[in-house]
Amino acid sequence: MKTILIIGIGAGNPDYLTVQAVNALNQVDVFFLMDKGLSKGKLNQLRRDICQRYIKDRDYRMVEAPSPSRAGDAEDYRQSVAELNAAKQLVFERLIDEELQDGQCGAFLVWGDPSLYDSTIRIIEAISRSERHALDYQVIPGISSVQALAAQHKVALNNIGRSIAITPGRLVAEGFADNVDSVVVMLDAGNGLRSLVDQDLEVYWGAYLGTEDEILVSGKLRDVAEDIERLREQARAANGWIMDTCLLKRPE
Amino acid sequence: MKTILIIGIGAGNPDYLTVQAVNALNQVDVFFLMDKGLSKGKLNQLRRDICQRYIKDRDYRMVEAPSPSRAGDAEDYRQSVAELNAAKQLVFERLIDEELQDGQCGAFLVWGDPSLYDSTIRIIEAISRSERHALDYQVIPGISSVQALAAQHKVALNNIGRSIAITPGRLVAEGFADNVDSVVVMLDAGNGLRSLVDQDLEVYWGAYLGTEDEILVSGKLRDVAEDIERLREQARAANGWIMDTCLLKRPE
Repeated sequence: MKTILIIGIGAGNPDYLTVQAVNALNQVDVFFLMDKGLSKGKLNQLRRDICQRYIKDRDYRMVEAPSPSRAGDAEDYRQSVAELNAAKQLVFERLIDEELQDGQCGAFLVWGDPSLYDSTIRIIEAISRSERHALDYQVIPGISSVQALAAQHKVALNNIGRSIAITPGRLVAEGFADNVDSVVVMLDAGNGLRSLVDQDLEVYWGAYLGTEDEILVSGKLRDVAEDIERLREQARAANGWIMDTCLLKRPE
Repeated sequence: MKTILIIGIGAGNPDYLTVQAVNALNQVDVFFLMDKGLSKGKLNQLRRDICQRYIKDRDYRMVEAPSPSRAGDAEDYRQSVAELNAAKQLVFERLIDEELQDGQCGAFLVWGDPSLYDSTIRIIEAISRSERHALDYQVIPGISSVQALAAQHKVALNNIGRSIAITPGRLVAEGFADNVDSVVVMLDAGNGLRSLVDQDLEVYWGAYLGTEDEILVSGKLRDVAEDIERLREQARAANGWIMDTCLLKRPE
């Protein structure tokens, strides 16, 4: 039997790690690093820093694997992600086969929380279901960027007694459902906020949350939407990549 | 200046505390305990246990204050919560005045995450805005029951590329918005699941998440809705209270 731990490491700040995650790190023989693109260097360095800081008196290995990329021009987003996950599954299976011995423990360190817009659980579950490997796996939750955003802005996500939506950036232009007062935009919102400036909304925006590069902006959306767009472009140009999250709320 | 820390202590499991929360606990002079009702004894005991386990070489005090109750028969839910929060604010202000000296640090230990269906941020913000007290306050995120639920069931909250709604139990009977594949039901859903059994939904339910009393059920909603209702009533009768969360998903 091999064990896989899917460990949420929180959104940026190494202090976001839970005691459960620290204990989990200290059971791992092999860490699999899979990020891609321009953010890869920075994010994998943070993963290495977290291991160095929290793992005591234990030998472990880091294995970096090339991560497949999604076809960026796909017409069907869902289909292209499903294909990407199938390609990632092949990589994961090879890693489990070749890099992990029977009785050993491997881990994926997931940015934020593994249950929120991350494919690792889905892929490991598919591998487990295939029964090609004797596999046990566990999921360890982490502080998501949504929570880091709310904490840094000192704001509740929900209005009293009302629903919250969490939505990928691509869908933000669809706007607010009637019974929803709060929308959290994950992943890249691009210029989707622009389509909402005519509505009476408060925005709480954050980039590189929990890190030393953190940027926070809040205010009426119509007043600060342009600032956010400008800061986003500047930060992306300066750092080569951006990771941002925003909360839109109807006034309470 | 007085400091107030609003510390998320996670959903049940003491190992859900973050390193940031542990560091925060070790700065606190006075903890304010405010729970009410039948769950109060158990939850405040868990808060005391957490302090005992994580606070090293520091004197601190616990102050238990009677928590006001919401008028249960109010017609206007939002209004009744606003009135409750106003009553809580008076209690909080008295605590800050009488129990905390200048330069000291007080803390509220919030179950789960302070940004999710909890009034502490809202009340402290109102006190801060009133300028009647020289107050600095910080929010420390915690693992919410939503994340604990997903981790224990090893399931992603979202379907690929789709939105998630988080909704209070009272509103679950309103069902799914078109662009939403996942609905997380917080607080007491009562028998609200019943109204959805004709839809093709998967359900992941959990009670007393992260504790030794944890109960998990998953399956097609139509197959397990009655089991969940029965287990809920049994557990509530046995323990005197229940705290449960559920995730409903359209098949992917």
